[in-house]
Amino acid sequence: MPYTAPLNDLRFLLDHVVGFDAVQATDRFAETTPDVTEAILTEAAKLCEGELAPLQRAGDLHPARLENGVVRTSPGFAEGYRAIAAGGWVGMSADPAYGGMGLPMALATCMNEMMSSACLSLQIAPMMTQGQIEALEAHASDALKALYLPRLTSGDWVGTMNLTEPQAGSDVGALTTKAVPKGDGTYAITGQKIYISWGDNDFTGNVCHLVLARLPDGAPGTKGISLFLVPRHLPDAAGNPGVANALKVVSLEHKLGLHGSPTAVMQYEGATGWLVGPEHGGMRAMFTMMNNARLGVGVQGIGVAEAAYQHALAHARDRKQGQTPVADADSILAHADVRRMVMTMRAEVFAARAIALSTAVATDMHHATGAESWAARAALLTPICKAYGTDTGIRVADLGLQVHGGMGVIEETGAAQYLRDVRVTAIYEGTNGIQAMDLVGRKLADGGEAMSRLLDEIEALAESARGSLPELAEPVWQACETLRETTEALVAETRLNARFGGAQPYLMAAARVLGGHAHLAAAIAEGGRGPRSALARFFVGRLLPEHGALAAQALAGDKDLYALDPEDLVA
Amino acid sequence: MPYTAPLNDLRFLLDHVVGFDAVQATDRFAETTPDVTEAILTEAAKLCEGELAPLQRAGDLHPARLENGVVRTSPGFAEGYRAIAAGGWVGMSADPAYGGMGLPMALATCMNEMMSSACLSLQIAPMMTQGQIEALEAHASDALKALYLPRLTSGDWVGTMNLTEPQAGSDVGALTTKAVPKGDGTYAITGQKIYISWGDNDFTGNVCHLVLARLPDGAPGTKGISLFLVPRHLPDAAGNPGVANALKVVSLEHKLGLHGSPTAVMQYEGATGWLVGPEHGGMRAMFTMMNNARLGVGVQGIGVAEAAYQHALAHARDRKQGQTPVADADSILAHADVRRMVMTMRAEVFAARAIALSTAVATDMHHATGAESWAARAALLTPICKAYGTDTGIRVADLGLQVHGGMGVIEETGAAQYLRDVRVTAIYEGTNGIQAMDLVGRKLADGGEAMSRLLDEIEALAESARGSLPELAEPVWQACETLRETTEALVAETRLNARFGGAQPYLMAAARVLGGHAHLAAAIAEGGRGPRSALARFFVGRLLPEHGALAAQALAGDKDLYALDPEDLVA
Repeated sequence: MPYTAPLNDLRFLLDHVVGFDAVQATDRFAETTPDVTEAILTEAAKLCEGELAPLQRAGDLHPARLENGVVRTSPGFAEGYRAIAAGGWVGMSADPAYGGMGLPMALATCMNEMMSSACLSLQIAPMMTQGQIEALEAHASDALKALYLPRLTSGDWVGTMNLTEPQAGSDVGALTTKAVPKGDGTYAITGQKIYISWGDNDFTGNVCHLVLARLPDGAPGTKGISLFLVPRHLPDAAGNPGVANALKVVSLEHKLGLHGSPTAVMQYEGATGWLVGPEHGGMRAMFTMMNNARLGVGVQGIGVAEAAYQHALAHARDRKQGQTPVADADSILAHADVRRMVMTMRAEVFAARAIALSTAVATDMHHATGAESWAARAALLTPICKAYGTDTGIRVADLGLQVHGGMGVIEETGAAQYLRDVRVTAIYEGTNGIQAMDLVGRKLADGGEAMSRLLDEIEALAESARGSLPELAEPVWQACETLRETTEALVAETRLNARFGGAQPYLMAAARVLGGHAHLAAAIAEGGRGPRSALARFFVGRLLPEHGALAAQALAGDKDLYALDPEDLVA
Repeated sequence: MPYTAPLNDLRFLLDHVVGFDAVQATDRFAETTPDVTEAILTEAAKLCEGELAPLQRAGDLHPARLENGVVRTSPGFAEGYRAIAAGGWVGMSADPAYGGMGLPMALATCMNEMMSSACLSLQIAPMMTQGQIEALEAHASDALKALYLPRLTSGDWVGTMNLTEPQAGSDVGALTTKAVPKGDGTYAITGQKIYISWGDNDFTGNVCHLVLARLPDGAPGTKGISLFLVPRHLPDAAGNPGVANALKVVSLEHKLGLHGSPTAVMQYEGATGWLVGPEHGGMRAMFTMMNNARLGVGVQGIGVAEAAYQHALAHARDRKQGQTPVADADSILAHADVRRMVMTMRAEVFAARAIALSTAVATDMHHATGAESWAARAALLTPICKAYGTDTGIRVADLGLQVHGGMGVIEETGAAQYLRDVRVTAIYEGTNGIQAMDLVGRKLADGGEAMSRLLDEIEALAESARGSLPELAEPVWQACETLRETTEALVAETRLNARFGGAQPYLMAAARVLGGHAHLAAAIAEGGRGPRSALARFFVGRLLPEHGALAAQALAGDKDLYALDPEDLVA
């Protein structure tokens, strides 16, 4: 499964669609010149294409396994991880004070996408570490920072997130893991955590777990939760991994996909941990990590979508079946319905990638300028990026399988692996339903102001193109108006559960409008002539119209959802 | 994974929605009284719930395998198959002259759905045999009928379909398997066939392959193809399996799902075969089998959807997470977005099942009355049933996985198996893209007359309910009008490829309208008060509106699909 990094589209989006020039113009990111950007993208592509992509299949065929309590990783994964670490990629957006490159999140997002395309199972390890670095930078004590950040940034150690327990999934507040102060400034952590991605490995000197637990005086629910850093090995005086901590991997899950990524059940038995952030302030600290991770998971979906797209396109260009309606073309790509699937894949990936990079740019602008409006923009876009990015991953992988015909379900082809691998991304880091609730709940709690500002910008762009590209500008403008009215109606709805009843279609309607914006902006940049303009016409003509029925559903409330008694749900 | 046959919905649809009373009123099916119908459904349910459902997981965990050229089937499959055969279920719609029960296809469809829910991997064996029986009844010589039909009908022998070759998938006409007359009325068959479901087994006395091959004087393409019956063992004078034929299973595929169903690469090396139908008339004979099989595959999708729905509903009613907005309810089923997913699953299954049973009833009415209008109705509905039924299977299995949250991707839960198993149904027996092309091509070749008659009937029903159930009748009537206009525009489009460019969305728009009709009819039967009326309001309010954007896409033509050069499709 050869993979070619989509550098042309990444460059095009950075240069013409998502406003990366504003990031480059800030003091904080002044060193990220066009030359540096180009060098970063080129080097990242080289690593992903040459060293990581060959690991994808090996991870699927030879899953990580637990042997006598030790996790044995898939063939080549140790070398692949070391190559990522050696290139400085784990810490590419981390604080230079601790060895990071201090690059914008927009560039880290490009790299995260490419790594996800190349080998999603492995990519999870550096991605979780990036999130942990961000959480520690924001919330840890100076002593913890000094000890852990250099080692995480270099990739010598990796980080994990420990939230879920058997009875506490989406409902994190139901967790029962306990933390008891030991009197020496450390805490004894006891409990079981499940679904811990890369809970252990056989190629880094240490594994640092961020664990949510409850102190003895912690209130029930999320308000009584604190965050702890719990290393597999306690650092010695020199900062090297010392005594083994009282924690272990109990088992690894047998999963639909991501076989190369060890998903662990972790047992903590009085393990030593250090508090990160204030007592009972764990959720806030964890959310720092989760916002980053939600952008990152959306990008995982996009990465798999891109890889599945390339794989299906190559098959469609190669496979010959039947007389085609196009002169001089004899592959199935010349058939209208295959072309429809391929164009859909390409147009969705372009839209989702633009939304993800816009989210990253907003984060960068907030970090660089401190302006709250950028923070609000990033917060607004994050659930859309996560849910639409991962839904796009699933949809595109599914279409890619379909393009393969019967070969699509034969595992040797590789098409099915993309679908199996990407499926969980719609679930972890908050299910896509949770993302939608976050969007219509918290993210519209400002009365819809952040969304309104975004729609103002899109409409202004559409108005500027009304003369030159009316066939694109007019439908995008109209869709904005529909989304604006829908947003206002949702904001006016005082019963939160009625909002929740339309949350998922509202999120998808917003994604359609944002996708329309991205495609319009691309066409404008091309002067309406060029491949991205043709793609824009496809998206605006075929996919954008879906926003209408979605917006109507968004306002359907919740009464119809509860009209059937649970007993009557049985056929 | 306990399974409960959805007898209430099946009975309700037969009695109130799909016009099964008309079938019962015919001379041919006069013995299918309400009492007989009830007995059949009850017995079928008992077998599927009690004996077949327990095999589902075993098939996944212990795939069929090839040992020294012999196919070894999954644990319990032999006993499961024998129970199906012993009950007479293989031949339930077959000609009583050869031992069949002569029951309507509508009842066979109910049974096929239940078997698919219980264990899709195993169900494929009797389903393929049913199709073979129908093809032989219609096209074989009396001698072949007398020899083979009793043994297939009893289930002592099973049947397979051999169409695909490596270079001939959707393009059947590209096949190269040869048939050479041996001078004794038999033919020597030589070639390789792939994707042969249940290509062999270790529990029936014989396996009868229907093989498409080309005679020496056969023209290129589909016009030169003939159909041959090629048994694994040549029947001796007494009709018992005798000498082994010159054919073998070369290998079994390693598939995404359906691990219990051996998918074989078959090699024919001068194997002895008997002609079925006229020389060079193989495609017509095969289409008899394929129309049956396409209805059957649509029903497979519905069966898996029902099972996945039950599985997810049970989880949603059991799993507790977070504070719910509903008093006295503490499972996740009380959350609006989970309820939205569950209602969507239930509403889609109801609609797809109604379309499948309507297709079966049309087939029965054609068989019973000989009226060509019923044949046209069945032909029109078949591609919609196949594509929408299987898409529903995939969508519902996917939603079921999502309802499970993190547990959904843990294989032990079983949710992922439904998705893996059902995925291929959108591909085999003609991909869903092929179904859509069939619909806008062949099935609208009558100038849209069959579709127009169907829409007349739906509009008449809607008009009758305009006073009593306006909130349902009006949207259904409007959707009919939209589909009518869309159909007329497609018929007026003389460039077939322009129709093909909108084929898939047209099929889905038609499925939305037919689904709206089924839900409306159910609500009318309930007098607008009852669980199916509540479900109808959900479908009409949330899902039917999608027909608008789909109809618009159906008329988008093909120009936008070819606006990008293949080179520019690369990102």
